[in-house]
Amino acid sequence: MSEIVYGRWATMETLRAARREVHQFVLAEGVEEKGIISDLMAQAQQRNLPIKRIPRRIMDDVAKSTNHQGIMLRVSPYPYADLDEILDVAHQSQEKPFFLILDLLQDPQNVGSVLRAADSVGVHGVVMQERRGVGITPAVSNASSGAVEHLRVVQVTNLVTAMRRLKEEGVWMAGLDIGPNIVPIDRADLNIPLGLVLGSEGEGVRRLVRDTCDLLITLPMRGHVESLNVATVGAVALYAAWQARGWHGWAHARE
Amino acid sequence: MSEIVYGRWATMETLRAARREVHQFVLAEGVEEKGIISDLMAQAQQRNLPIKRIPRRIMDDVAKSTNHQGIMLRVSPYPYADLDEILDVAHQSQEKPFFLILDLLQDPQNVGSVLRAADSVGVHGVVMQERRGVGITPAVSNASSGAVEHLRVVQVTNLVTAMRRLKEEGVWMAGLDIGPNIVPIDRADLNIPLGLVLGSEGEGVRRLVRDTCDLLITLPMRGHVESLNVATVGAVALYAAWQARGWHGWAHARE
Repeated sequence: MSEIVYGRWATMETLRAARREVHQFVLAEGVEEKGIISDLMAQAQQRNLPIKRIPRRIMDDVAKSTNHQGIMLRVSPYPYADLDEILDVAHQSQEKPFFLILDLLQDPQNVGSVLRAADSVGVHGVVMQERRGVGITPAVSNASSGAVEHLRVVQVTNLVTAMRRLKEEGVWMAGLDIGPNIVPIDRADLNIPLGLVLGSEGEGVRRLVRDTCDLLITLPMRGHVESLNVATVGAVALYAAWQARGWHGWAHARE
Repeated sequence: MSEIVYGRWATMETLRAARREVHQFVLAEGVEEKGIISDLMAQAQQRNLPIKRIPRRIMDDVAKSTNHQGIMLRVSPYPYADLDEILDVAHQSQEKPFFLILDLLQDPQNVGSVLRAADSVGVHGVVMQERRGVGITPAVSNASSGAVEHLRVVQVTNLVTAMRRLKEEGVWMAGLDIGPNIVPIDRADLNIPLGLVLGSEGEGVRRLVRDTCDLLITLPMRGHVESLNVATVGAVALYAAWQARGWHGWAHARE
């Protein structure tokens, strides 16, 4: 089985992370071999990867997107982690666990964007459901600028079951929601073993997922447009949680 | 002179905000007249707007995008504000001024996304430079889910001159930057008359813009991918600033 990864940053991070087997390095005809492209080609040559040139239109078809910037890898499937692994990573970090839980997000751009923020704040793992939501597709990898290639992402059959499992390990589930009696994000103590739960575009968190949460928090809004993009909400919430932890692990914070 | 606005939410917010003259309501052939589309058509009929059906491919061409969701308005140009107006809005709000300053952002998706967040936190105005950066194009309006139709956006010839003008009025300029000696965003007092300055994708804030700032703040990162999308940085910073103001103006905060 072979998958693809496309776009400059996703290609670069796939090579850097070195978690997937790389079968082929593919360039679109007409792409100039300079800058980051020539750097990546040099890496491909060092690894003795076959380099292939294909027409741009074929790449559009294979990538099912025109956002490939003329560069693509054929790789082994995305290396999903499991719950034990992310719990272990959290344990070994000697920090309070910090997880992101995605409840049926649909848009690859949103998922990619929030996963890039998740990488930036250093979550120990991400949990998402296998069906009905988007997985780690080539579009998600590209939209995350390759951040998913470094993140530990767990795909589970049932999100609620996975949340219960994490709760048994002492992790608190905090769901982002909208409603009259929900506390704003800065009034909840997020410096705890935390699973931050984001609902899907339009629908929000499902009822059973919400009921499984230990606390609900909200991002205040006072705009004319009455909603925010879920990737924006997720990024702000992830940063609020990391800030509550005193920017733990950030080089400058230790000075 | 006529412009277009496309996409469901941008169309809806343009009609709601009622700041532009609407010349024509345009649907792509094959779009079903149900849900929000039929609501919008009802509004168009109430206003006696001419409704036109055109082939989807023509709409792709006119919108220079395929993200139009089959709906489009022909409207008068975007109603830019001026510096006096946004200063006046801030004054009348009886809050400390809260502005967003964009230094040559290039990507309509980023600009739309950060402007949607700017609406959500209730900034009094946005300032951007007329040349070399993106303006309020149809793609920006769509990417903001129509938030720009409510925001006061000022296009200036020279961003540094505009920043100096705002500084003369007592507004402090806080630039988002990356560097070893820059304080994390939560250690700066943002509960002040504030202009939050965001630099462009890749380049960051220009040197003269940075030199015009009164303080520099940074968003910590500890990820494998060494940068964050400017729209994400902007949203987190806007929320940090609004939080510093105690969520002023948010209904639940007043309870």
